[in-house]
Amino acid sequence: MKRMTVQEMLSFKEERMEIRIMGWVRTRRTGRELTFIEVNDGSCLASLQVVVEASLPFYEEMSRITTGSSVCVTGDLVSSPAEGQAFELKARDVQVYQRAPESYPLQKKRHSDEFLRSIAHLRPRTNKYGAMFRIRSEMAFAVHHYYRKKGFSLLHTPILTGSDCEGAGELFSVTAGEKGEAFFGKPAHLTVSGQLSAEMFALALGRVYTFGPTFRAENSNTSRHAAEFWMVEPEMAFADLDDAMDLAEDSLKFLVSWVMEHCREDLSLFTRFVDKDLAGVLERIISEDFARITYTEAVDLLLKKGSGFEFPVVWGEDLKSEHERFLAENIFSKPVILYNYPKNIKPFYMRLNDDEKTVAAMDLLVPRIGELMGGSQREEREDILAMRMDAQNLSRESYHWYLESRRWGSVPHAGFGMGFERLLMLVTGVSNIRDVIPFPRTPGNIEF
Amino acid sequence: MKRMTVQEMLSFKEERMEIRIMGWVRTRRTGRELTFIEVNDGSCLASLQVVVEASLPFYEEMSRITTGSSVCVTGDLVSSPAEGQAFELKARDVQVYQRAPESYPLQKKRHSDEFLRSIAHLRPRTNKYGAMFRIRSEMAFAVHHYYRKKGFSLLHTPILTGSDCEGAGELFSVTAGEKGEAFFGKPAHLTVSGQLSAEMFALALGRVYTFGPTFRAENSNTSRHAAEFWMVEPEMAFADLDDAMDLAEDSLKFLVSWVMEHCREDLSLFTRFVDKDLAGVLERIISEDFARITYTEAVDLLLKKGSGFEFPVVWGEDLKSEHERFLAENIFSKPVILYNYPKNIKPFYMRLNDDEKTVAAMDLLVPRIGELMGGSQREEREDILAMRMDAQNLSRESYHWYLESRRWGSVPHAGFGMGFERLLMLVTGVSNIRDVIPFPRTPGNIEF
Repeated sequence: MKRMTVQEMLSFKEERMEIRIMGWVRTRRTGRELTFIEVNDGSCLASLQVVVEASLPFYEEMSRITTGSSVCVTGDLVSSPAEGQAFELKARDVQVYQRAPESYPLQKKRHSDEFLRSIAHLRPRTNKYGAMFRIRSEMAFAVHHYYRKKGFSLLHTPILTGSDCEGAGELFSVTAGEKGEAFFGKPAHLTVSGQLSAEMFALALGRVYTFGPTFRAENSNTSRHAAEFWMVEPEMAFADLDDAMDLAEDSLKFLVSWVMEHCREDLSLFTRFVDKDLAGVLERIISEDFARITYTEAVDLLLKKGSGFEFPVVWGEDLKSEHERFLAENIFSKPVILYNYPKNIKPFYMRLNDDEKTVAAMDLLVPRIGELMGGSQREEREDILAMRMDAQNLSRESYHWYLESRRWGSVPHAGFGMGFERLLMLVTGVSNIRDVIPFPRTPGNIEF
Repeated sequence: MKRMTVQEMLSFKEERMEIRIMGWVRTRRTGRELTFIEVNDGSCLASLQVVVEASLPFYEEMSRITTGSSVCVTGDLVSSPAEGQAFELKARDVQVYQRAPESYPLQKKRHSDEFLRSIAHLRPRTNKYGAMFRIRSEMAFAVHHYYRKKGFSLLHTPILTGSDCEGAGELFSVTAGEKGEAFFGKPAHLTVSGQLSAEMFALALGRVYTFGPTFRAENSNTSRHAAEFWMVEPEMAFADLDDAMDLAEDSLKFLVSWVMEHCREDLSLFTRFVDKDLAGVLERIISEDFARITYTEAVDLLLKKGSGFEFPVVWGEDLKSEHERFLAENIFSKPVILYNYPKNIKPFYMRLNDDEKTVAAMDLLVPRIGELMGGSQREEREDILAMRMDAQNLSRESYHWYLESRRWGSVPHAGFGMGFERLLMLVTGVSNIRDVIPFPRTPGNIEF
C-alpha cells in the first residue's frame, strides 16, 4: 500500500490502484447513493475528492463525517466525471482517527482575518493561510538558493547582543532569572540587525548574508510593524553603493520570479481573492529596470508632482511612507531605488560622500509597501568612522572591534537589509504583517 | 577586466589573460628577482599565489607588503612551476587598499583556539575558522535542501514566547524598556524549542520543520553548552515513533554525505589537523545501519559491559553523557537510537506507551558527542495529555491551544530536535561548541 500526499496524487497523469492518503475533512456532501468528501492534507492548496459508495460498510459513518475530522483513506485513483478535477479517489477503506465536534471553529464559510488571528493555531488549516505559509517556506528557500548561487556564505549572527547597532532606543532587554544582568556581566538586548557582525565576516569570507529574527520594542500598532520579524542582510567586501543597488535589484527580481514559478497554485489564491492587480505588479518587477534617483531628485519630484500629503516634504528629513509609496506607485509605477541621503538622518556606519552632506545610502521602495530594503556602502575609513560615532554619541570603547576592522586591511564594502515579511506582503498582496507571520508578536500579543 | 574569486580561478583548466582578484595578503616571500604573495579572499580555503617581477613599478611596495593588507591584483593566470598548485597569478597591476600595521594579530603562526575566541571578529580570517564557517553555511543549506525535498515546509516559530515548552526553569526573561512586562501584557521569555508551535502547523500542513535560534539561561561552563544555539525541529502528522527514528537516521546520513561531497577541501583541514579519525567516523555513519535499542536494553548493556563511570547507571534516571558516549563509541562504534524511556524523566507531551511506565521517546546518540537528536511520538489523546500536564504541574489554561489541537481532528504525530552546533562538532571533530558559532554566547560572554 503506497502512502501519498494529495500533491503527489494530483500530479499523476493516469489512474492508479490501491493508494492511501491521510488528511482532514474539509467538506462532505451526501447524496442518495454516494457521499463526497474533500480531504486536504496540507501538501497543496487543492483537496482530493473522495467518493464513498453506499454499499460500503463504513458508509453510514462517512455520510455523517464532520468538517475537521482526521481520516486515512485507501482506494483507487480514477478519472473524475466532475468538473475542475481530473481524478477522484474511490474509497475501499476508511479509518477515522478522530471525529471533530460540530463546534469546530473552521466550518465552511469565509472567516475574517481578524477572527483567524484569534485562532492562530488553527488558521493554517484554511486555504488562505495554508497557501500563505507554504509560500513563506518556499520564499525562505529561494533566499538561501539565491545567495548561495552568488557565492555568499550564510552567517548566523547573535540574537543576544551587548551593543545596539543603530543607536536606536527601542530595544528589548534580556535577563537570566536570579542572575539577572550578571549572567553576561553587562546589559543584554535582542538584536535589531546582524549587520555589524556580518561586516566582520564579509571582511574575512568576502560575501556573507544573514537570515534571522530581529526585534523592535516599538509600542506601535500599525499594519506594517511587528516586535519580531525576519531580516535578510547581505554584506559584500570589495563593493560600493552601485554593487549594493545591483544586488538589491537582481535579488528582488530573482525572488519574485521564483514565487511565480514555484508557487503558482498557492499564488493564484491571492491573485483571485486578495489583490486583483497582483500579477501585474509582480510582472513589472521582473520585466522592467528599477528607477534609480538620488534622495535630492526624489524630493524635487515630490515637491513638483506630489499633492495631498499628510506630512510636508522637506530636504534633510526622512521621507514618510506616503511619500515613498507615491514615488513607487504614482510617479514610477515600479520599484525605485533612492540613494545619497542626508547624513543627519542616517546611521554612523554609512559612508560619507565627498560633498560631506550626504552618505552613500540606498533605499529600495516598492508599490504597496514603501521601503522593502535599506542599505549603504559602509564607512571604511577609521578616522571618519570614529568622528561619525562621536557625533552620534556612540562609545568608541564598546565598538572597539568594529573600529578595529578599519585598521587591519580595510576595504570598501556594502550591504543592505530586506524585511522578509515585507517581501511576503509584496508577493501576496496581503496588507497586514500579522497575516504573514505564523504567530505574530505585537504589543499585547504573545498568546500561543 | 573580469573580476573573479580565488575559488573560480582555481577551478580553471587552462591559462587566462587579464583577470582580477581582490583579497587579503596571507604571506609574502621576497627573493632577488621576484616577490611571492599569497592572497586569500575567503571564497575557499586555498590562497592564490601572486608573482610580482622586480621590473614592475610597484615592486618596491609589494616587496614590503604586510600580512593582512588588502589588495586588488590584475594579471595573467599562468601555469605555476611551484609544487602543490597548478596556476599562479602573474601581476600586471596591483592596488593596495590598506597596508596592515605590523601589529596585526594574525601573523603567520599557529594560534590557540582560546586566543582566537578573544578576537572572534578576526578569527574567520584564519584557515581553520574560514573553513568552519563555510562548512556551517553549507550544512545549513543542506538542512533546507533535505527537508524541502522530503515535502516539509519551513516554519519560523516565535522567539518571544509566553509559555515554556518543557517546564524547564532556565529561561531568559524579556522586557521592553519602560514598558517592562506591560509590553506584551504578561511575562515574556526566549524560546527553548519551537516544537509546540510546530505541532500546530504539522496538524495543518502535514510536515513542517523549524530552523532557528533557541536559548538556555543555564549558568554552566561546559564545552557542549551555549546560551544561544540553533535547532532543527521536524514535525510530521500521521507519523509514529518508527517514522521519527527513520527520519532521524535518514536525515543524518544525508547531511553527513552532503558535507563530504560539498565541503571536501574545507573538511580536509579538519581531518588533517583536528581529528585524524574523522573520515572513518563519518564514513561509518553513512554506510552502516544505526543500532536501535530500548532504553531498558541500553541500561542492561551498560550494567553488563560498562565500567569506570563517574555516575552510576540506574533504570529510571537520565543517562549521563559518559553513558551515552560509551554506547555509541565502545559498544556499537556507530550511532545508536535509544527509545521508550521512563515517563518520569521525559516531558509531558511524549506519548504514553501501553505499559504506562514508558513513553514513545527517542534519542539519537553519536560517537564523540553523545545526544545529537531527541524526539518522540506526541501524545495525541486529549485526556491523557491533560493528565500528564497536571502531573507535571503545568497550567491547562496557558496551554489551552495546545490541548485544543487534540480535539479538532487529532492524529498520531511525531518529531525531534537536532542541535545544529552538535552536528557541526560531529562533522568537523571540533570539541568546543564556542568554536562552531560565529559569536558564541556563554555566561560572561557577550562581547562583539
